[in-house]
Formats: sequence, C-alpha cells, structure tokens
Amino acid sequence: MSGGILHTIHGPADLHALDAARLPELCAEIRRALIAYGHHHGGHIGSNLGMVEATVALHRVFDSPRDRIVFDVSHQSYVHKMLTGRADAYLDPDRNDEVTGFTNPDESEHDQFVLGHTGTSISLACGLAKTRDMNGGNEHVIAVIGDGSLSSAIAFEGLNNAAAQGGNLIIVFNDNEMSIAEDQGGMYGPLARLRESGGIAEPNIFKAFGLDYRYVEDGNDVAALVDAFAEVRDLDHPVVVHIHTRKGLGLPVADDAADATDTSASIDVDNDDLPDDRTGDLADGDAVVAAEDLAITEGRCEANHWQNPDSAAGRPLGARKHYGQLAMAALESRFETEPGLVVISPATPGSNGITRAFRARAGKHYVDTGITEEHAVAFASGIARAGGRPVLATSATFFQRTFDQLQQELSLNHTPATLLDFGGGLSGADNTHSGAFDIAMFGNVPGLTCLAPTSEHAFLDMLAWSTGAGNDGPVVIRVPGDTILNAERAGGFPRYRQDDEKTVVAVTGTATGVIATGNTSVDGTVSPNPWNRYHITHAGSDVAILALGNEYPLGERIVAALAADHDAPIDATLIDPQQFSVIDDETLAALAANHRLAVTLEDGQLEGGWGEKITAWYANRASSPDTAPMRVLNFGAAKEFTDRVPLAELNDRYGLTVANVTARIHSSLDR
Amino acid sequence: MSGGILHTIHGPADLHALDAARLPELCAEIRRALIAYGHHHGGHIGSNLGMVEATVALHRVFDSPRDRIVFDVSHQSYVHKMLTGRADAYLDPDRNDEVTGFTNPDESEHDQFVLGHTGTSISLACGLAKTRDMNGGNEHVIAVIGDGSLSSAIAFEGLNNAAAQGGNLIIVFNDNEMSIAEDQGGMYGPLARLRESGGIAEPNIFKAFGLDYRYVEDGNDVAALVDAFAEVRDLDHPVVVHIHTRKGLGLPVADDAADATDTSASIDVDNDDLPDDRTGDLADGDAVVAAEDLAITEGRCEANHWQNPDSAAGRPLGARKHYGQLAMAALESRFETEPGLVVISPATPGSNGITRAFRARAGKHYVDTGITEEHAVAFASGIARAGGRPVLATSATFFQRTFDQLQQELSLNHTPATLLDFGGGLSGADNTHSGAFDIAMFGNVPGLTCLAPTSEHAFLDMLAWSTGAGNDGPVVIRVPGDTILNAERAGGFPRYRQDDEKTVVAVTGTATGVIATGNTSVDGTVSPNPWNRYHITHAGSDVAILALGNEYPLGERIVAALAADHDAPIDATLIDPQQFSVIDDETLAALAANHRLAVTLEDGQLEGGWGEKITAWYANRASSPDTAPMRVLNFGAAKEFTDRVPLAELNDRYGLTVANVTARIHSSLDR
Repeated sequence: MSGGILHTIHGPADLHALDAARLPELCAEIRRALIAYGHHHGGHIGSNLGMVEATVALHRVFDSPRDRIVFDVSHQSYVHKMLTGRADAYLDPDRNDEVTGFTNPDESEHDQFVLGHTGTSISLACGLAKTRDMNGGNEHVIAVIGDGSLSSAIAFEGLNNAAAQGGNLIIVFNDNEMSIAEDQGGMYGPLARLRESGGIAEPNIFKAFGLDYRYVEDGNDVAALVDAFAEVRDLDHPVVVHIHTRKGLGLPVADDAADATDTSASIDVDNDDLPDDRTGDLADGDAVVAAEDLAITEGRCEANHWQNPDSAAGRPLGARKHYGQLAMAALESRFETEPGLVVISPATPGSNGITRAFRARAGKHYVDTGITEEHAVAFASGIARAGGRPVLATSATFFQRTFDQLQQELSLNHTPATLLDFGGGLSGADNTHSGAFDIAMFGNVPGLTCLAPTSEHAFLDMLAWSTGAGNDGPVVIRVPGDTILNAERAGGFPRYRQDDEKTVVAVTGTATGVIATGNTSVDGTVSPNPWNRYHITHAGSDVAILALGNEYPLGERIVAALAADHDAPIDATLIDPQQFSVIDDETLAALAANHRLAVTLEDGQLEGGWGEKITAWYANRASSPDTAPMRVLNFGAAKEFTDRVPLAELNDRYGLTVANVTARIHSSLDR
Repeated sequence: MSGGILHTIHGPADLHALDAARLPELCAEIRRALIAYGHHHGGHIGSNLGMVEATVALHRVFDSPRDRIVFDVSHQSYVHKMLTGRADAYLDPDRNDEVTGFTNPDESEHDQFVLGHTGTSISLACGLAKTRDMNGGNEHVIAVIGDGSLSSAIAFEGLNNAAAQGGNLIIVFNDNEMSIAEDQGGMYGPLARLRESGGIAEPNIFKAFGLDYRYVEDGNDVAALVDAFAEVRDLDHPVVVHIHTRKGLGLPVADDAADATDTSASIDVDNDDLPDDRTGDLADGDAVVAAEDLAITEGRCEANHWQNPDSAAGRPLGARKHYGQLAMAALESRFETEPGLVVISPATPGSNGITRAFRARAGKHYVDTGITEEHAVAFASGIARAGGRPVLATSATFFQRTFDQLQQELSLNHTPATLLDFGGGLSGADNTHSGAFDIAMFGNVPGLTCLAPTSEHAFLDMLAWSTGAGNDGPVVIRVPGDTILNAERAGGFPRYRQDDEKTVVAVTGTATGVIATGNTSVDGTVSPNPWNRYHITHAGSDVAILALGNEYPLGERIVAALAADHDAPIDATLIDPQQFSVIDDETLAALAANHRLAVTLEDGQLEGGWGEKITAWYANRASSPDTAPMRVLNFGAAKEFTDRVPLAELNDRYGLTVANVTARIHSSLDR
C-alpha cells in the first residue's frame, strides 16, 4: 500500500493546499488504505469507510485544531487521524500501535477528547462553543454523530440545548442507517422519509429541536460535502448537516451487496475473542463482524470488519459469548410456558452471546432498545412491576449510564429485574471500556442483590433463581470471565457441584473448622436469599482466602501454594463469597475463632469495592477482650484508569499473583 | 372545607358512576381542597391545580388499578390520591401525614411506582405495557409527563422506544409551559407553535418519534379531556395526548395574573427552609415558591405554592442557599475579568442560592440547561477543555444521573470543571431525594478531586482554587450543610482560619504529636493539590477523630467530651480531612506513632464511602513487627433507603452521637 497523496498530507494545511480535483483521488487512496489496514489489523472499518469523504471535506473546509471537531464515540476517527499527521500508523503495519481506536488529546492536538461511550459529542461541542463565545472567538465547532448514537439519551439533551445556546455550531449527522445492530426506535421511520424526500419531509426531528437543517443525499460525494460544509461554516447559529453515507463503501462487491441487502446484518463481535491488546478498540457505536455470523473467507475484509475472521476460526468462544449463550439457552427453554420472560439488550446483543439465531427464535421475548441503557433499566423495572421477568444484558462499562435508574426505578422500587453484567472486572480494555468499576457501583446500591458466580452451574442456578418465583427484588449477576471459563475447561477444584445447589455452609467455631452443609445456616434459620451466605469450599485454619468471582481460581492456586510450602505449610480456608451485596456476618464471625488472617481477592477497584467492607466489618465488630483481632489483607485494583494494559501486567501491578499474595500472607503472620 | 362530592368518591368506580354533568362541580371542589391544603400544609400545589381536570378525566375513562397510570416524578399526583381513597388526607389537616408527596405502592394499589426523579414515566409505562402484551392482557397503560420533564434524557429514550414497541400506550403530555424554572431548550419554540396551531403545525416532535398524536387546547375542560381520553383509550398503538393546562388555575386572580405574566417566575424554594419532615415532598419536576422571590402575603396561596411563605419569613437562610449565595457572589466578582467563568444549573437554581437577581446580572455567565444533568456535565467538560471555567450546581441526588459522564467525559478527560454538590449527606429527605450516597459515588471515581469544606472560608477557598489557574482537573465540592452553618453561627472551635489558607499540616512521629504548618509536607515536597493533606486542627494522642465535612462539628463535640471525662480524660487528636478522594498516607502513618485508635465520622453511607478506606489503609500497610496495629472505628449511615426520617432519628440509628461514639471509643480502648 503506497500512499501517493496521503503521504504528502501532514496536516490540514496540506489538505487545504491540494487541488480540489484531486480530492476524489485522495479519498480513493484512503479507502484502499483502510481496507488494507482492516485486513491486517482489524478495527471499525465499516463506519470509517462510510466517513472517508465527510472527513476529508471537514478537514478541507475547517482548520483543525483551531476549529474543533468532536467525533461521537470516536470509533469513526481513523480518517481524521490519517489527515492529521498519523497516516503512517495506518499505512505501516509495524506502526499500528502508535494510534488508539479512539480520539485522544495525548496523541494529537487535533483530538479534542478521549471518548468511547455514545451520544456525548453535541454536549461537549456546546461546551467548546460556549467558551469560544464567552471569549469572543470565531473558531468553528463541529460535532459528528451517527444515527445509531442518536438514540442515546444525552444526545437528545444536547440537541435540545444546542439551539437554545445559539452561536456557530455544526452538527454533522452521519446517517448510514445502522446502529451497532439494527437501528431501533420510532424516530427511524420519519428519518427514512426525511432521506427519501431529500430532506424536505416533516416531521423533521432536528427542526423539532429548534435547529437549522441541511441535507446531503450523497454523503460519499466529497465535492458536495465540501460545498455543504462551506455553506454552513460561518452561520451564527447551530445547524444540522444530515449526510447520507454508505457504511463499508469500497469493499468488494460481494461484501457490499451482502451488507446492503441483509437488513439483519447485526454482525457483532465477541470482545473476548480478541487478544487483550485489541479490546481497546472496541466501541459501542459501530457494528463489527462475528465469525459466527458470516462465512469465513480468507483474505476478505467484511463490510463491518472488526478483525480478520480467520484469526477467530477454530478458537473456542470467550467467556462473554460462552456464558451469554448458555444463559440465553436456559431462558429460551422457558419462553413457551413463561410469557413474561423477556431479554433486553441495549444495542449490543452479539458480543454477549445473544446470537441472531436466538433473537429470531425469541421473537417478542427479545427487545433491542437501541443504545439506551437508562431506558432499558426503567423498562425492565416496568416489566417486572407488571409481573414479567426481564433479563437485561449489557457491558459493565455501559451500566454506568444507569446508576440513577439502578437506585431509583429499580432498587427503591424493589422490582425483580435481572441484570447480566458482562465484561466486569480487569482486562486489557481501553480506558473508555474498563470493567474495573462495576463492583464499587453495583455493590453500594441498597437492596440490589449482586451475585458473582464462579462456575457455569452457579451462574445458571443464580439466573434461574433471580428470574423465578422465589425472588422478588432486583439482581445483578456478574457474568463469569475468562479466568473462570479457563479454570472450568482445565478441570481443577470442584468449586460448585450441581448436587449442592443453593447449599449454604458455614464453619463452626471449632479449632479445625468443619463444613456444615444444608439449606440452613448455623442458627437454623432459612436464608431469604440462597446466595447470602458465603460458600466455604475448603475448611482449613489460620488463614481464610475469600476469593470473589473471577478471582476464585487465583484463590484456589493460593490455597494450593500455601499448603505446598515446605517450610511452613498452611491449610488455608477457601471461600467463594458468591455475592458482594451483603456481609455474611455469621461466617465471618465463625472464621475468627480459628483464623488469624482473612484475605480478600477481587478483580475490580479496591476503593469502594468489596474487600474493604470485610476489613471494616472485622474492625468494627464488638469482639470480646480475649479475642485477638482478625487481620485482613485486601487485593484488587487501584483507583485509576488504565488503557490497554495487558491483564497479566495489571495483575502484577496490583499484586494479584500467587507469589505476591502468599508472600504478604507469610509476612503478615510473622508480625 | 367540606367535600360534598369528593366525600362520596372512594375509588374510580364511584367516579365512573357519577353523572357526567357533575364532573365540573367535582373539579371545583377538588380545586378548593387543594388550595386549602396548600395554605395549611404546602406542597406542589401549582402543578396539581393544573392537573385537576386531567386527573378526573383519567380516572373517569380508565379503570385504575387494573389500568395503570404512571405519573412522571409524581409530584402532580395529589388529585389522583384524592380520587383513589385518600381524600381525607388532604381534607383533614390532622391526617396530612397519611400521604407522601409522591406516588407509592405501599400507600395504594393505584400507585405504580415510588418516583421522584424526572423523565422515567414513559420507559416504565413501556415496561408495564410490554408485560401486558406478552400476557395477552387488555388493560390500558398511561404515562403522564410534563413539558419540563420532557427535557430530560431518558424521556426521549422512552419516546423513541414507545412507537417501536407498539401496542396500547397513552402518553399524556401535560404542557403548562413551565419547568422548575423557565422551560429551557430548542424544542420549546416548535412546541409553542404547535400549541398556537391547535396541534397542526410541523415540526411535531412526537410525530418525529413515530408517535400518533392528539391535541387538547383546553386542558382544564374536563368534558373535552374525557372525550379525548375515551377516543384514544383502545388504540392498538402508542399515542401522545398533548393537553395544554394552566398551572395554578383557581388561585386568586392576583396570583394567577402574576404567574401568567411573569415569565421569569422561577420561584424556587429552599429545601433547607423547611422542617425535616417536609423535605420529603420536594421534587424536581415542579416549581415552588421562595419567600425571597415573592411578597409575603398573609394567608395567600401562591401560584406554585410550596408552603405558606409566612413560615419562612424572618428565618435565616438554610445552608444550601446561604453557601450557594456566597459562592455566586464570589464568582460574580470575577465575571468582568474572567469571560470563561460560567455557572450552570440543570433547572434547579433557586434552591441552591442562585437567585433570580444573580441570574439577571450574570447574563451569559449563567446557563440553565433544563432538567439535563447528563448534558450539563459533558457541557461543563467541553467548556473546560476550551479553557473556560464552568461551575455546575445541583443536588447530590441528581448528580446520580451523571455517573458515567463523571467517569468518562469529566475525569478520564481531566478537565477543570467544578461541581457544587448541594444537599449531600444525611437529612430527613424522602427516599427519592436522599443525599446519603454521594460520597460513595464521587469518592470512587479515579482522578476526581472531592472536597468537603467545614467552614465558609474553606468552602470559598476551595472554590477559588478549583476555578483558578492552579487546578487542571475536575473537582466536586460538597457544599457544607446545616451542621456546619449552625456551628459557624454559634461560634465554637476555630476550625479554619483565613490566615492559614491552604496550610497543610501533619503530626510528626513523636510521642505527643505536634502540628507542623506550612505549604510543604513532612518530606519537603509541595503538594500538587493544597487539599490533599488532612488538616490537624488539634494534636492530641491515643485517639484520633477524623471528622469529614458535615460531621466535623460532631467531631469537635466528641473531642471535648473525651477531654472532659472525669474518670479517664483523653486528649484526642481532631482532624478535618478536607477531602475524600485521596488518602493522606503521611498523616495516617504519623498518627500511628502515638495513637491506638482512629475514628472516622461521615454523614453518608459507610459501605463504599470514605471511612472504610481509612480502615483498609491501616489494615494493609506494611507496619514493622513491633508496631501495634492501629484500630479503626467507622461511623456513618447504613446501606438503606430512608423516607422522611428526621435527622436526629437517623443520627441515633447510626450512632452518630457524642454518647455513642465516646462509649465505643472507651470500649475499644479497654479491649
């Protein structure tokens, strides 16, 4: 791939100096470069292919970084990066890692923000424009947002505020008729009629928000786009430039035709099929290809390519899809007899094992709400209030959008909705998609039951319970991650046996500790929630390892290493807490009788997380004067954002390793 | 006040049986009852007066509770309550406490949800309708939402999903041309033209979302409303019934005229002017009267009455308004020389001391974004990215809407926006407006500086720093509450002196502890944030009281009580942590040299909060074998929702009293 013109473009000034007649040639070159990049690296190629001409036109008409362009989600910013001094990172495979999959001010002065969540570009642009106007400046501010992102709550707030604010603000509405999966929502019908009418038909949603409006039917005609942007560049009020683009334009005809005719080309990718250092590119604002959904064809770049499908061929499913598919299968088997059982996905089905085949079979038992996490939680609460059983599946990072609905509509109203929390925990994700914050978010909401299964059986039992008649309140289940799946595939400790479903166990206060089994706790009462008691999977003494969720396999290895220590072997107790919403007082109290040290492990942020609650519980309990205080050590993540740091490196950084934890245990016992 | 017809209405069946000709008489009676209730009790009378006819018509046409009516925010549900068996609670002053200010399923089967935040009714109704359709039911589902609430993010997601879902769903759009303050946003112009045209004009925002639409010009004509609702009752698809109502209709002409002509009748109330047991009625979806904004007139019920203004006359301002006004005054003095300094309020200015007079003077330095917290945070980040200095003021409970924007647009992007967090902490608030969760939310966001001033001077210094050149990142300032204000008014300990602004102090590792003053920490480095070090206001030994924010006055009293103990006086150290975002390792380490016990006090949820971080820090630090471990006790709130529980009762419940804390300290030291 040789970049004839592209190699001469080091920034917008070079683009401004280019003969206008050569712009189509430049676009063709960029398109070829994107397709080649897609083959060897992967990425959000489909949306970037659709945005080639618009991005060239933006940088032709405007003067970045003085003029400020905000890309919504920013997964479609590859062409922008190519035109602002970073073309070599796309042209030279050895330099691919020089750019992230999203805009990033640390990478270039042409990038305004680090973004990865949906719908915030208009609000951010309003802020940039506000400061300009307060300072009496005359630079231009542009927000670029897609039709999928427009379904997102905050995008509407931005539209509504833009017109009220006034002043120069150009909102480029990139309409490729696709969201991550299909576009979902009542506004897409009127939008289609708006396109068909050449931008004339009413109702016009943008005008309904008080905004000026322009339409460009061929959003891949660079000359038309240059004209359109030049026409609105100096307006003294906000305007929407609606451009109709073709996602994936430039791909081989076979792919393109398939994409154009297959309206259900929802084509999602499993984040977990990717090496950790790739997950940083995953955004929620674009469609990507899953090997399961498309034929594997060597060397071809699919319309909405994520990575070369070959690389996923023959590999087993990652945890997200594996457990997601199991959950969907379990629910599907009940659809016929349970009409109120409904699966909800806010626009990201495929990555969570909600396959197209499942969706087709599920019919009305499946609802894609579009990119609308807030609505999805309130919607689920409504379903549950009327007696239905909703199961809402999305990523930990996107549940952050729903914190207030979790509190108010769900937990305060105590409705039995089940949330499936995918991708929670540590990973090599980029800094906009980290799952490290979910325990600290969910675990501090009053009345929300937070479950952390450590096996397939526990996961499915928990799902059956939360969606069954025995549960009357909201439940979040943190879907097991790859550490659990890998441990299950490798065999290992019998962690959770099907024949002791919902067994609650507790150590007695004897010197050696024994396991008491059965559905009753030590005082004979039946637990109102079968998961509220910690599960003691190995009763030892002196040291208790409480290993939450995805860290349970690490707990197993630590217990084994402590037992194997030649100098000072320790028969440590191993506990699968099963949940992080309530403290199991009885088990913690019982442990104190024959343990000196409790160790908590979690794969999320320590501050505000789970382990510190155990520490505080022991610190604050009223113990008798002759009882030595229980020492507690907590292991988990620091309070920080991390960007595409491989998981092994994170585990080293946070001391979540057998060597570190066992060393800290010995050191603590020696004090 | 005698309820002639109303006394015969015990539920919708009685209303169905009533002669249609008597409906206006019933409405008149209800209106009189509301006005009388407003005089002696207060409440969201304005919006309820506007909704009298619509609510009567709804219960005339529909069959609650079989048909389900969801009131957005639900502050306008008084008439609904009167018609569903709860009239006496409004007619008999002795029984006022039998009803809350919002809908509540625990109170009546006619109430679908506990609600108090804005914009969720359509999503909740979609859920109710979904379950009905899955079960093949034929009951009706109705959402009632006001024009102010419609500016809220999730409301748009609901509109967009309603049409896509299909099936019977009636959205009553109650358009009284008012939000909490004025309506804000570009959509209100087209909405006004829609009203003026009798519902004909385009663009029609509801049609743009794919919804069917009806318009009722006189939304206070009960017969017209009955006809309109009957016409749409059995539609097989969602419909918006846009009713044009008059807020406050029925009040004396003087008030009514004043309200109708004064477009800036933003008329807010200070929550803190109310006794604790009243704050439960405060919602964000209605306008209420502040004594400052209207002449105090004995016996009159204002258009948007909150409580009889007489009761606030002559009383000093509560903390929200007091500190809010101080902050605005400090910022205003800089407007002339700092064009980028901008105050943002998502629709709730008055309750936070942002008076109408200030707003008028501030001009473009003040922006009301409507009820749009998500947009407001992203907007602030955009302002800051471009070099401006935004100050965003709203309630702790409403900041919950912005958790994802706090993480992504604000903290990850490290933009210097200042958030003023009003109403954080414990209070007698209702269960939808609690401020007990803010420390656990803000304090666990990486990179967000969380300040908790304990005096006016500290508050204003922190505001000056966060909005000044010395700060480059996001800051939330928890505005001091009434405990601080009362302590300042009463005198007491000199907590923070103007002459030691930004002083950082630390105890040295000596036996008695001394205060080291100056801007350098013990190792000589300059702190990058002047508030990251804890402020030791009294250096003692043995016991250290770390009293965060609003609990600082309690800390003072505890230290005094410990010193005054005749049997075993303790000269305890008192610490004002000033912030809850980072641990001051050096001060904590130094404390360990001559203290056995650390006590943390906070007026928020313990789980996920601040004190448990101190406990975990001591538990996990690598101490030398000959150092006795530091014991820690944490005092704060349980993980629970509370509903209008008086503050004194909450403090007793959580042990946040001098007697309890000192007893626990003695007991701990005796172990």
